[in-house]
Amino acid sequence: MKIPSKHIEEAVEQLSSLPGIGKRTALRLVLQMLNRSEEEIQQFSEAFVRMKKEVKKCTSCGNISDLDVCEICSNSNRDHGLICVVEDIRDIMALESTGYYKGIYHVLGGVISPMDGIGPKDLNIGTLLDKARDQNLSEVIFALSATMEGDTTNFYLFKKLSPFNLKITCLSRGVAVGTELQYADELTLGRSIINRQPFQLNA
Amino acid sequence: MKIPSKHIEEAVEQLSSLPGIGKRTALRLVLQMLNRSEEEIQQFSEAFVRMKKEVKKCTSCGNISDLDVCEICSNSNRDHGLICVVEDIRDIMALESTGYYKGIYHVLGGVISPMDGIGPKDLNIGTLLDKARDQNLSEVIFALSATMEGDTTNFYLFKKLSPFNLKITCLSRGVAVGTELQYADELTLGRSIINRQPFQLNA
Repeated sequence: MKIPSKHIEEAVEQLSSLPGIGKRTALRLVLQMLNRSEEEIQQFSEAFVRMKKEVKKCTSCGNISDLDVCEICSNSNRDHGLICVVEDIRDIMALESTGYYKGIYHVLGGVISPMDGIGPKDLNIGTLLDKARDQNLSEVIFALSATMEGDTTNFYLFKKLSPFNLKITCLSRGVAVGTELQYADELTLGRSIINRQPFQLNA
Repeated sequence: MKIPSKHIEEAVEQLSSLPGIGKRTALRLVLQMLNRSEEEIQQFSEAFVRMKKEVKKCTSCGNISDLDVCEICSNSNRDHGLICVVEDIRDIMALESTGYYKGIYHVLGGVISPMDGIGPKDLNIGTLLDKARDQNLSEVIFALSATMEGDTTNFYLFKKLSPFNLKITCLSRGVAVGTELQYADELTLGRSIINRQPFQLNA
């Protein structure tokens, strides 16, 4: 499909450079944007430039933040002896939205994945070991994806962290809340039998 | 899900203002964009501002263009006595990509749709009638959506155009190329029997 304007074509090009947005979708969005006022477009554009300029990585955990140290790391009410290791910033948001976690985080920036050429050196592992050595940690929680790559990374981290006197835990795995048993996959179901827990009222 | 940065939140807000992009998708895209260089983000942003500033509506047909009169309307090799009426700019692109049409276009900007509060006055109909009156047209082709709204609009335009001495046609409807007959809907199949055409080799 030939676009009759170079400028539209460029906007489509830019928008479709985002993962998961194809040229057709981008064209639809761009033509919709053309109906907006110049001021609205300006606001749209500036949001991204400002974001890139202002957003920082927390120097302690790797979370995104408007400050040098993120709100979680600078909150003295949280347990700084408890570190939850996650792959990505979005995992922090997901865990935070549960409201159940009161410790701090450490963002790895991915998982070990030889297929994608990602080794331990590409991840934020050194600083985690520094924290284990220098800070007074009581527990490290592995909260990585329940995939082979996640398990590999868990195993690697476990090996590296075991010299330190630390409790090492990982998220429980089992049947998801709201799942009908017959639709749970067998691996998950198998694990949930092995790791069965004492029944609690109101749990 | 609470986003730990006001600036990220604003970028997400802007991106999810586009139709069909939800907050979660927007967040994924914005976090991906954070990995780009400041220069790339600048380019991204500028593309939209420039588009809004530079792109014009063709004063003759309503197509988008970088010039005051679009490439199609200013092309003297095209048949200016043949006008194809379309709803939207994208329909022009679709028809142009077939390579079969050699006339010019007229963009209505929608179809008559009382449910959405769109009446004849909201559409670009007056200028079409002006063209029928003032220019030496031989044929007007209706290329609107094959929906009830499209049909209503066709009917309205037909009534308005019939005083002028014009050939009025519309796109043929029938079984789409590549469709297995059993999967064609009955209305389409019915029409394709009524409007059956002389068989041609190499058609």
